[in-house]
Amino acid sequence: MASESKNAPTPTMSRRTVLGTGIVAASLPLTAGAAAASAPQSDVRTVGSSGKKEPAIDIVIPLYDGYEPLDVVGPYEVLSYIPGATVRFVGAEKGPVKDALGSLPTYAPASYSEVKHCDVLLIPGGRSFRTMVADADFLAWVHRIHGQTRFTTSVCTGAIVLGAAGLLKGLTATTHWAGAEELTSYGAVYTPQRMVLQGKFITAAGVSSGIDMSLTLAALLTDELTAQAIQLWIEYDPQPPFDSGSLAKASDAVKKRALELRKPNK
Amino acid sequence: MASESKNAPTPTMSRRTVLGTGIVAASLPLTAGAAAASAPQSDVRTVGSSGKKEPAIDIVIPLYDGYEPLDVVGPYEVLSYIPGATVRFVGAEKGPVKDALGSLPTYAPASYSEVKHCDVLLIPGGRSFRTMVADADFLAWVHRIHGQTRFTTSVCTGAIVLGAAGLLKGLTATTHWAGAEELTSYGAVYTPQRMVLQGKFITAAGVSSGIDMSLTLAALLTDELTAQAIQLWIEYDPQPPFDSGSLAKASDAVKKRALELRKPNK
Repeated sequence: MASESKNAPTPTMSRRTVLGTGIVAASLPLTAGAAAASAPQSDVRTVGSSGKKEPAIDIVIPLYDGYEPLDVVGPYEVLSYIPGATVRFVGAEKGPVKDALGSLPTYAPASYSEVKHCDVLLIPGGRSFRTMVADADFLAWVHRIHGQTRFTTSVCTGAIVLGAAGLLKGLTATTHWAGAEELTSYGAVYTPQRMVLQGKFITAAGVSSGIDMSLTLAALLTDELTAQAIQLWIEYDPQPPFDSGSLAKASDAVKKRALELRKPNK
Repeated sequence: MASESKNAPTPTMSRRTVLGTGIVAASLPLTAGAAAASAPQSDVRTVGSSGKKEPAIDIVIPLYDGYEPLDVVGPYEVLSYIPGATVRFVGAEKGPVKDALGSLPTYAPASYSEVKHCDVLLIPGGRSFRTMVADADFLAWVHRIHGQTRFTTSVCTGAIVLGAAGLLKGLTATTHWAGAEELTSYGAVYTPQRMVLQGKFITAAGVSSGIDMSLTLAALLTDELTAQAIQLWIEYDPQPPFDSGSLAKASDAVKKRALELRKPNK
């Protein structure tokens, strides 16, 4: 396939990044900054009251019935504040889309088939991701668009869709903990990290991890000061009341309860 | 006003909560659990494949043009997994609602005026919150509904809407850092905490803090095991790549940049 060479395995390196006043681990290959800097920028537009020229960044997020809302809205919130960025939502067809939780009707303003190119492709997860895995036209579109992106990304079980599109063979990737085995079935090497950046792929773990991934992506697309400013604006200073957010940290009882809860009664 | 006695100041106490495998600080008055336990439960329904009876929990989130998407979807994601819970979105009128970031058309399935009672009221913030502050009918509805809730909650500048409804006089509360002064103008005592629980009010800080607040709320409405299970299911094990998520942690340069970015060019 046309973009096969772009999918060649590259080593994933972890480094500790010391930024500003704090220290947080992120999985960043050392080449990521260079890759982002050298990627072509398609357009320039005037942004903000300062009249400053900013590179246009076209971000596309496909929606489908059963998408998980936070998989989508976490990144949407972060990425929309990137100067020059536009987030476009697309569906199988232009029209209404139902989320996985059943209460917030949304609307896709365009069909994915109208998209021929974008800078960032982000595939969200959700309980109905297998309808995307079974949709050959959609997978072919994902593969084709990936050939032109600066970054191809996923949140949660969206990684399994990238796998089904044949894009993750031999690559290290992450997904929702409950989807690890299925991801592996497409030839990816699952790693239980919150985020894995490998080449131009960035896969994030379950649901909420898209926020963390998007802050890293924002830094790669702009600069660390801007990404930190977005973090401050959305006041992302997490203080969850519990510490059961990953399989490694949760007890067996919590895991059992989570598997009971996973299908809200809607 | 009818519910004035419910708004009498109560001391806010901070305690460290040691739960499961980790330690995280939460601002919880010691009476909160008792208040939640003694609150009336309006209905019982059968939930899940086990056929277990769960108390129905009716959660209402008003939407308005210019609401901040993550203010809404963070809590929506968490609260929807509570057994027996239903999240209802309401608008000024039934119909389309525009979010603050401009790309994800949503639809309010009902008008707020149709809601006469709910267990949890959650007011989100957003750049257009002042249209709500100026809407006397909406504020009267908030005040009236609050009189019947088990919990009245806000995310971000939603606290200022509660203030404008006359509900926070003399009470300690939090909001987005950029809204602190405006919150104070309604007689509330601003505190730069991620979450403040006082009586049956829970106010959360900016945007993303609604996730943390909702996990606490989930524990109050159910039990800690269930809240921890929700945290695991949405894989909320935050690892932001930076540590600039609060005003106390961000540099002056980051704050300046955040104020430049706050109005995406949409």
